[in-house]
Amino acid sequence: MATQNNNKPRVVIVGAGFGGLEATRALAGADVGITLVDKTNHHLFQPLLYQVATAGLSAPAIAAPVRHLFRTQANVTSLLGDVTAIDARARTVLLKDGGVLPYDHLIVAAGATHSYFGHDEWAAHAPGLKTLEDAFEIRRRILLAFEQAERETDAERRAAWLTFVVIGGGPTGVEMAGTLAEIARDTLPGEFRHIDPAKARVLLVEGGPRVLAAMPESLSESARRQLEKLGVEVRTGARVTGIDGSGVEVSVPAPAGGSGDSSSNYRIGTHCVVWAAGVAASPLGRHLAEATACPLDRAGRLLVEPDLGLPGHPEISVVGDLAAAKSHAPGQEPKPVPGVSPAAKQMGRHAATMVLCRIAGLPTEPFRYRDYGNLATIGRNSAVVDIASPLGPLRFTGFPAWLFWLFAHIYFLIGFRNRIVVLIDWASAYWSKQRYARVVSDIEPR
Amino acid sequence: MATQNNNKPRVVIVGAGFGGLEATRALAGADVGITLVDKTNHHLFQPLLYQVATAGLSAPAIAAPVRHLFRTQANVTSLLGDVTAIDARARTVLLKDGGVLPYDHLIVAAGATHSYFGHDEWAAHAPGLKTLEDAFEIRRRILLAFEQAERETDAERRAAWLTFVVIGGGPTGVEMAGTLAEIARDTLPGEFRHIDPAKARVLLVEGGPRVLAAMPESLSESARRQLEKLGVEVRTGARVTGIDGSGVEVSVPAPAGGSGDSSSNYRIGTHCVVWAAGVAASPLGRHLAEATACPLDRAGRLLVEPDLGLPGHPEISVVGDLAAAKSHAPGQEPKPVPGVSPAAKQMGRHAATMVLCRIAGLPTEPFRYRDYGNLATIGRNSAVVDIASPLGPLRFTGFPAWLFWLFAHIYFLIGFRNRIVVLIDWASAYWSKQRYARVVSDIEPR
Repeated sequence: MATQNNNKPRVVIVGAGFGGLEATRALAGADVGITLVDKTNHHLFQPLLYQVATAGLSAPAIAAPVRHLFRTQANVTSLLGDVTAIDARARTVLLKDGGVLPYDHLIVAAGATHSYFGHDEWAAHAPGLKTLEDAFEIRRRILLAFEQAERETDAERRAAWLTFVVIGGGPTGVEMAGTLAEIARDTLPGEFRHIDPAKARVLLVEGGPRVLAAMPESLSESARRQLEKLGVEVRTGARVTGIDGSGVEVSVPAPAGGSGDSSSNYRIGTHCVVWAAGVAASPLGRHLAEATACPLDRAGRLLVEPDLGLPGHPEISVVGDLAAAKSHAPGQEPKPVPGVSPAAKQMGRHAATMVLCRIAGLPTEPFRYRDYGNLATIGRNSAVVDIASPLGPLRFTGFPAWLFWLFAHIYFLIGFRNRIVVLIDWASAYWSKQRYARVVSDIEPR
Repeated sequence: MATQNNNKPRVVIVGAGFGGLEATRALAGADVGITLVDKTNHHLFQPLLYQVATAGLSAPAIAAPVRHLFRTQANVTSLLGDVTAIDARARTVLLKDGGVLPYDHLIVAAGATHSYFGHDEWAAHAPGLKTLEDAFEIRRRILLAFEQAERETDAERRAAWLTFVVIGGGPTGVEMAGTLAEIARDTLPGEFRHIDPAKARVLLVEGGPRVLAAMPESLSESARRQLEKLGVEVRTGARVTGIDGSGVEVSVPAPAGGSGDSSSNYRIGTHCVVWAAGVAASPLGRHLAEATACPLDRAGRLLVEPDLGLPGHPEISVVGDLAAAKSHAPGQEPKPVPGVSPAAKQMGRHAATMVLCRIAGLPTEPFRYRDYGNLATIGRNSAVVDIASPLGPLRFTGFPAWLFWLFAHIYFLIGFRNRIVVLIDWASAYWSKQRYARVVSDIEPR
């Protein structure tokens, strides 16, 4: 493969998610030759992926071609390629098709994938939501479930087609459950002749004691109330013990201090399950750990140095969901960095700056995560917001929170055109309660 | 399956393309129970499908859920189902999943598919453009060809990746070739580091003597000139004799009256071929012919009666691309109806009206096609228009024709929202020369 700028330091960045994108941008104007490699041709705005899965947005509205984003940044070569391994000794990145990318500095931002907690057989029945393909599959299952219900004459089987289970009460699970309820209550009624879509059940199953566990307790409580107002049945403290083609097995452990075995088990009949529970680091993490002898944490993330470099391999940095990083604020104990997109961006920028430090022979600095707050949407007019302000944390819920969430997300959407179109799509969806991307081209089950 | 309105005449309409949609609409308010069955959940605005294939529009912009379109037409039940056969004796439509739809009146509007003229092995190397899946596959191949070219170091192999062949000089072929040239010349330059996308070759191969053969000769000539101005190599009188994974074999017959065998054969090295040459009636046509003893023409279309009913089966009508229909204008010889969307719509409306005539015991009337003209786009600012006017045919080309084409297509787009979004997409594409739907999620070859 041709390489450009042979005399300049070669920086390879793996992954065009938030971390990789920000690292690449931070090196704009630097006298380096960057190769940005991703296994798709686009940067995906993941915070809105649930909108594609629920037919509210089209895929191109949240996906921008990487090549186009960096067309004017002359030191970047975009490459479509699937990274399978890293040879830390030879300092090369190996691609699935046999391609080899030599590097002087490597930033790995390969992200995360789903984890089924050792139950990989659940994957076929409960797709997760990480890629556009995932979103299309979930959209297909949701829309086809209503179609099947319309054709089903047996009451029990019909009820199963009209039952939707979302597993995991984090931000993605809450968004999916809330939006599913909206589809059933607001979008579809009037379109069917044999069923009432508004009678569909949406269940949100969470193993822990509350939804949005990363938020303050009052906001979790508000989120729960807002979900229930939308018609979602919220089941906290409920562990999933089985998923198959016709339902989900749930176990509710006995309350602590209770006498004897008072745990209860039940089954929810459903053909549409969304997995929003477990996240595991990209498999590339394991390869990298083997290549560099860097330790992994239990989630398969690399335990990086304070400056985000790998122990013994300062020329390799890891950022985003693949890194088990700590935030180093002066005078405070190091704190784990959360797996959110602002953190990935900040890590990407830090790793890029550290590359420049190393090239210049300057010492590197520990990474510090600046937490500007946390927000999650629940559905139409429903959200919770917890942001830092000079006056202390600012917390609000409901419609103002939803508006704040809306504009924050549109502001951060990559590309001017996307923002306009997404705004129009949402404005029209808001007034009409319609969701325009209700397209299923492939009706056969995958 | 539950059926509604058991005492009312049951009308089953197969296919939610232009013909089926218009037939369903024409029965609005009628005292019948309509079941509209299609194998996808959406009506596809096929005249703009080439825009999805060339990354100019997202799929939802040209696809509207059938169920949504008829939500307020109370006599319609929408059904997602794949019709495999028709039992003309029992008067039932059979679905792939075992479903059975009884009918009193049947309108079949199942449309057309690709025909490779007996060379089905070409299909894998030269996808046609009929469904959204087709469009995604063509988009994938186009975008990945540029990616492969960027990574290829061998000059000859790189040239093959940068060669695009469109087979068939009808409206679809002309649109595809013109838009491909635009992508290469206007959209991609500046985004690659090792290739110049503007050097890509786009060839339009047509077996007949001119492109847009259904148009007047002067407009064909103009279309050819406009294509060449965009950088397309137009090869008329060139027959394709072979297609494989690395190229297309072309044969140019000796000119009539020439002495001896002066035909020439050549090969075009390419990995991206689009098939826009042959159209065949839906396979359902053959089933229907067997079930009713109705004769087929060479393209597999049913030779319908003047009123679009089948001979001996007045309760079955066939409309759109599946019908070999004739137009019966008073005092004129019957003329074949062309395979265009206005004709399908008019046939759909006629068949629906004839159903009402039969229910009322009135005689049916022969179908008459009203030809309001013909238009084809070629690319940015390029089109040809030939429309009927009280003063005789009105023909124009270039920018005015393109504007006319643009507004005509947006006007006929189903659904108000789509029109607005398509307009915005086009306005932004026009000014920026960008194409926003450049998304490939699945980089593995299918």
